[in-house]
Amino acid sequence: MFHDARIIEVDLTSGTINNKTVPGEIYRLYPGGSALGLYLMMQDYIIGTDALDPGNILVFSVSPLTGLPISGISRMNVTARSPLTGTAGDSQSGGYIGSYLKMNGWDAVVFKGKSQNPVYLIIDGEKAELKDASHLWGKVTGEVETAIKEEIGDKNIEIAQIGPAGENLVKFACIINKCSRANGRNGMGAVMGSKNLKAMVVKKGRPMAAADPDAFIALARSASKRLGENEAVAGLGLNGTDGDLEGFSEAGFLPTFNWKTGHFPEGAGNITGTTMYDSVLKERDTCYACAVRCKRVVEIPGRVDPIYGGPEYETCAALGSYCGVTDLADVCEANMLCNMYGLDTISCGATISFAMECFEEGLLKTELTDGLDLKFGNGAVVNQLVRKIALRDGLGDLLAEGSARAADKIGGGADKFSMSVKKQELPAHMPQYKPSVGLIYAVNPFGADHQSSEHDVFLVMPSDSRERQRLSKLGIWKGYDNPYELDAEKVRFAQDTQKYFSVLDSLGLCQFVWGPSWELYGPDDLLELCRSGVGWGTSLYELMLIGERRINMMRKFNAREGFTSADDTLPDRLFKPFDDGPAKGIYLDREAFETGKKLYYEMAGWDPEMGNPTEGTLKRLSLDWLL
Amino acid sequence: MFHDARIIEVDLTSGTINNKTVPGEIYRLYPGGSALGLYLMMQDYIIGTDALDPGNILVFSVSPLTGLPISGISRMNVTARSPLTGTAGDSQSGGYIGSYLKMNGWDAVVFKGKSQNPVYLIIDGEKAELKDASHLWGKVTGEVETAIKEEIGDKNIEIAQIGPAGENLVKFACIINKCSRANGRNGMGAVMGSKNLKAMVVKKGRPMAAADPDAFIALARSASKRLGENEAVAGLGLNGTDGDLEGFSEAGFLPTFNWKTGHFPEGAGNITGTTMYDSVLKERDTCYACAVRCKRVVEIPGRVDPIYGGPEYETCAALGSYCGVTDLADVCEANMLCNMYGLDTISCGATISFAMECFEEGLLKTELTDGLDLKFGNGAVVNQLVRKIALRDGLGDLLAEGSARAADKIGGGADKFSMSVKKQELPAHMPQYKPSVGLIYAVNPFGADHQSSEHDVFLVMPSDSRERQRLSKLGIWKGYDNPYELDAEKVRFAQDTQKYFSVLDSLGLCQFVWGPSWELYGPDDLLELCRSGVGWGTSLYELMLIGERRINMMRKFNAREGFTSADDTLPDRLFKPFDDGPAKGIYLDREAFETGKKLYYEMAGWDPEMGNPTEGTLKRLSLDWLL
Repeated sequence: MFHDARIIEVDLTSGTINNKTVPGEIYRLYPGGSALGLYLMMQDYIIGTDALDPGNILVFSVSPLTGLPISGISRMNVTARSPLTGTAGDSQSGGYIGSYLKMNGWDAVVFKGKSQNPVYLIIDGEKAELKDASHLWGKVTGEVETAIKEEIGDKNIEIAQIGPAGENLVKFACIINKCSRANGRNGMGAVMGSKNLKAMVVKKGRPMAAADPDAFIALARSASKRLGENEAVAGLGLNGTDGDLEGFSEAGFLPTFNWKTGHFPEGAGNITGTTMYDSVLKERDTCYACAVRCKRVVEIPGRVDPIYGGPEYETCAALGSYCGVTDLADVCEANMLCNMYGLDTISCGATISFAMECFEEGLLKTELTDGLDLKFGNGAVVNQLVRKIALRDGLGDLLAEGSARAADKIGGGADKFSMSVKKQELPAHMPQYKPSVGLIYAVNPFGADHQSSEHDVFLVMPSDSRERQRLSKLGIWKGYDNPYELDAEKVRFAQDTQKYFSVLDSLGLCQFVWGPSWELYGPDDLLELCRSGVGWGTSLYELMLIGERRINMMRKFNAREGFTSADDTLPDRLFKPFDDGPAKGIYLDREAFETGKKLYYEMAGWDPEMGNPTEGTLKRLSLDWLL
Repeated sequence: MFHDARIIEVDLTSGTINNKTVPGEIYRLYPGGSALGLYLMMQDYIIGTDALDPGNILVFSVSPLTGLPISGISRMNVTARSPLTGTAGDSQSGGYIGSYLKMNGWDAVVFKGKSQNPVYLIIDGEKAELKDASHLWGKVTGEVETAIKEEIGDKNIEIAQIGPAGENLVKFACIINKCSRANGRNGMGAVMGSKNLKAMVVKKGRPMAAADPDAFIALARSASKRLGENEAVAGLGLNGTDGDLEGFSEAGFLPTFNWKTGHFPEGAGNITGTTMYDSVLKERDTCYACAVRCKRVVEIPGRVDPIYGGPEYETCAALGSYCGVTDLADVCEANMLCNMYGLDTISCGATISFAMECFEEGLLKTELTDGLDLKFGNGAVVNQLVRKIALRDGLGDLLAEGSARAADKIGGGADKFSMSVKKQELPAHMPQYKPSVGLIYAVNPFGADHQSSEHDVFLVMPSDSRERQRLSKLGIWKGYDNPYELDAEKVRFAQDTQKYFSVLDSLGLCQFVWGPSWELYGPDDLLELCRSGVGWGTSLYELMLIGERRINMMRKFNAREGFTSADDTLPDRLFKPFDDGPAKGIYLDREAFETGKKLYYEMAGWDPEMGNPTEGTLKRLSLDWLL
C-alpha cells in the first residue's frame, strides 16, 4: 500500500550517480519531506562532521503525495546539518520543482561529498546527469535561470540553485527556485556551495494519477468553493502574507528597530501588503496546482525586476521594520537582491538590523562599516549591505556569519543585540504576544522558526469559531481572553501543533492551506487526501507520530553534536517590558517561560535537564536505531 | 457541539436525590463510561477511604453514543474503588440497561454514602426514586428480577443488581443485569452491598435520534454485510467467545490446573464452544442493537435454567480447565450459580483452582475444607464452593476474600499458587504466549485484565491482512514470526492498543465489534459514528488522548493510595517453563518482562521507579487537577 521511496544518490566527489530505494514499510515511518530527508541524511552522516565539510549530506525530498494536483502541495524539502546553527537543519520551499521531481518518479536526491569543479545535476525521467557549471559560478540566479534554459533548450524545467551567497558560504545562504521561491532558512545554500553544487535542474514529467480519482478530484475541486468561504485564506491570496503587517504594528507587535519596539507608525503603512497591492504589485503568482495565489510579483521599472517575485511578510519586516526602513521600494529591492544572490531574507534583514543597533550603540565604528552610515532607516545602506554580505565584501564578510557569530567578533556586549536562537535569527512574530511561538523558538531543534507550530492568536477566538473547532481535533480545548498567557495547556498547544506542522513539513504540504487552524483543508481532508490520493488509509494518530518522530530525530541529532537545554534560550530583550507603543509594559514572563520549557520537555518525553529524547521516547517512535 | 452530561446523584445515607450536570467542554475530556466514572468518582472520593466504607463512590455511566441503535454499543460502566484490589476499579457489561439509562436522558448515576436499609433505585424518565428492598435482600438474581417486574408492573425495565455475594461483601462479587450479563471484575457488587443498594432499575425510554440520520443508518445497517465478510466476528456470533477453547489447549495455552499447564486434552473438547453449540445451546442472544449475537443461552433441564444465559470463554476456562473440570454441564451450572449469586466467574474459578492446588499440595487440610474433596477435576465440589463463597459459608468465607488474601491466611507458601496481579485473578490468556497481554496484566491499574489491550496474536498475521492494516492506523507496524517476543515495538503495541481499549471502555463500545484488530467497525467507522451519531467531529488523536487520560487517572488514584511499581508484577509461575504439552519448555522471559515494564513506564511518561504519572504527563492530559 505504500510504495518504496526511489532515491537518486549523487557522490559529488567521484561524480557517480546511483539509485536506491527505501522499502515502503520504512518509508511509511518517514513519509517524505523533512522526515525522509533526516532519515536519509542520518543514515550516512558521521557524528562531528562540520556542516561545510564534504562529509555533510544534503537531501532534497518530496512525499508520496507530491505531484498530485491539489492546492498547497508544492513544498520541496532540503535537509542537511546547518552551517548557521550547527544543528540538524531543514527548509521547505514552494514552486513547481518538487512536483516535477516526483513526476519523474523520484522521492529524494541525496548529495554526498564535494565536486572538484562547479557542477549542476539535471534530472530527466530515469536519467540523472552531472554537468559542468564553471561558467555559471559567480552568476546571479536570473542569469543562471536563463543560461541553463538555453543550454538545455527546454523551458519546461525547474531550477533550484544557489547564488553568489551560497558559493561564498554565507551562513544564511538559501536555495532559490523560479528566481523567487526559497528554501530559506538554515543556510542550506552554503551547504550546496561547499559541495560546488550550483544547481539541481528537473524536467517536467507526467502528472500524478490519484488512487481514487473521483474522490480526489472532488476534494481538489472543492478548493475554490472553500476559498470563497474562508476569509483568512482568501485575504492571504489577495494581499499576500504581508497583508496584515500594518495591523501588527498597530497592535504593537511588529518587530521594529532590531526588536527594540513593536510599533512602527512611521513605516508600517508604507510596507504593508495592501499598499503593495495598490502600488507596485504586478500580479499574484502561485505554486503548483494551488488556488490560493499568495505569491507576489512586484515591478518597479529600472529598480525591481518582476522575475524575482515580491516580498513576503517576513521579508517586509526583516528588511523593513527591523531596520526601520519606511520605503516599500527599498524593501522590494532588498527582496530582489536576496533572491538574486541567494540569501535568506529573515536572517539577512535581522543581521543588518543587528549591525545597525551595534552602530548606533557605538560598538561598530565607521572604520569597520566601510564608511557606510548604518543608522536605522537607511534603506540604501541596507541594500548595499545585502550585496556586500553575499559577496563577503568588507563588513559583509563579518555579517555573512550571522548576527550571533558577528557579535562574538565585535565584542563589547554586542551579543545582546543578536536576536537569535541557536544562532538563527528570529522571524517577525514577537514572543511577548505569542508566548507559545516563543517557546517553540527556544526548543525547536534548529532555532527560531515561525512555521514550526500554530500561533497563539487562534486561541483567543470564540470556542464555536471554525478555528477553535479544528484545534479540538488535536484535543486542544482551552480558550484564552488574552493571548499572552503561557500555562500548561498552552504548552501542550505548542507541542501538539508543532507535531502537526512537522507532519506538513514531511508530507510537503503548505501550512496556509493545510495548517491546523486556518486551513483551507482540515485534518479530515488530509486523511482523505492520503486515502484518495495514494491509497494510504492513515489516521491523525499515525500522522502525529510521524510529526513527533521527525522532531525527535532532530533533537537526537543535536544531542549527539553536544547541544543541551542551555541552547534552548531566547534573547534577553524579550523578557523586558516595551518602553513605548500600544504594547508599552508588555513582556515575556521569564518564570512562565522557564516553567513552560521544563514542562515541554517532560511532555515530550525528553530528559528534563538536557532536553533530549529518552530511550523510551526513541523506542516509542521506532527510533531504536538512533540509540 | 458536546452536550452537558446529566447526572443523577444519590446520597444513600440521607436518601436524597439530586441532579447535576458536567458541562460539555469538560464532558468532552471524559466522554462517558470509565473516563466519566473516574472523573465523577474522583471529584468526591477522599484519599484513603476503604472500598467498603460508605465514603466510597459508586458510579454507573454511559456515553454520548450510548443508545444509538448500532452494533456493539451496549456497554455500561461501573466505577468505584475496588475492594478486591484496593485500586481504582471499573467494569463494563453488555445488555440493554445502559441504553435505557441514556434513553431516559441520563449519562451517569452516582451513589454516595450507605442506606440504613436495603434499597433499590428506580429511574423513570426524569424521575428517580429510592424504594425499599428489604424483602429482596438474600434473594438470588432470578427471584429479584421477577419480584421487581411484578412490583413495578412493567416488563420493559432493566435491572442491575447484586446477588447474595454482593450482600455478603465477597471481594469479587459482581453486578448482574438481565440475570446473565455481568459487570464482572473488581468486586463492584461488594461496593453495592456495602451501601445496602440491592439494585438499579431503569425503565425503557425513547430511542436516541442520530445527528445525521442518513449517514448513521447507513453505518448501522452495514453491520450485517460486514458480518458476512468477517470470519472472526461471524465465528464469534456462531460459537460465542468460547468457540476456540479447544484450539487454545491444542496450542498449549489454555490455563489448566491452576495454570500449571496450558494443555487440557482430557477436557477441552467437552467444554469448547462448538460442543456447547452442538449440545446444550438453546439460543444465541444479543445485546442492544447488536447484530453479532455472541451471547449464549444454555438449558439443561432440571439443572441449568436458561434465564441465566450461558458461559463465556473465560468462564469455561476459569470454572473448567483452571479447576480441571471436564464436564460441560458442571461448567454451565457453575456459570448459572455465579449469575444467580452475583460472582465474577473469573476470580471465582481462579480462587477455587487456587484452593484445589493448595489442597493437593497439602496446605489446605480436609478439616479446613468442610470435608470437601478439593482435588482437581471435581466439578461437583467446584459448584458447592461457588455457593459457599457467595454465602461466606465455611471455607467459602476464606475464599470470598480472593486467592491472594486467602493465601496470606493459609500461609506455608500458598501465595505462590495465587495466580493474581494486585489481588485480581488472571483471565484465561497466558502471558507465556501473549507477553504483551502479560505486560498489561502487570501494569494495568486494577490488575490482570484481558480486555484492556489487544492480543499479540494479531501481529503474527501477514502484513497485508486486514488485522495488520487496521493496526497500522495506530502506527503499529512490526510483524512477528512468533508471538512470544517482547521487544520495544511490542511494548508500544501493548500501550497504544491499551489506549484504544480505554477509549472503548469510555465510549461504552464492545471490543468484539469496535476493537482495533478484529473489529466489525474500524477506527474510521468510530469517527463516523461520533460524527453521524452525535455531531462530534473528533479524530483518532483526540480519542487516544481520552484513552490515555483514563489510564493515567487510575494510575494517579493508585499512587495516592500507596501503589508503586512493586505492585506491577506477575506470578512467578509464568516465568518457569511448561513441563509438558505442546508448549513444553515455553516460558515468559523475566528479563524481557522487566525491561519491557521499565520501557512501558518511560513511554507512558511515568516515573521510572514508581510507575506513576509525572507532572508533565498529567498536564499533557489536562489532568492538572490531580496534582
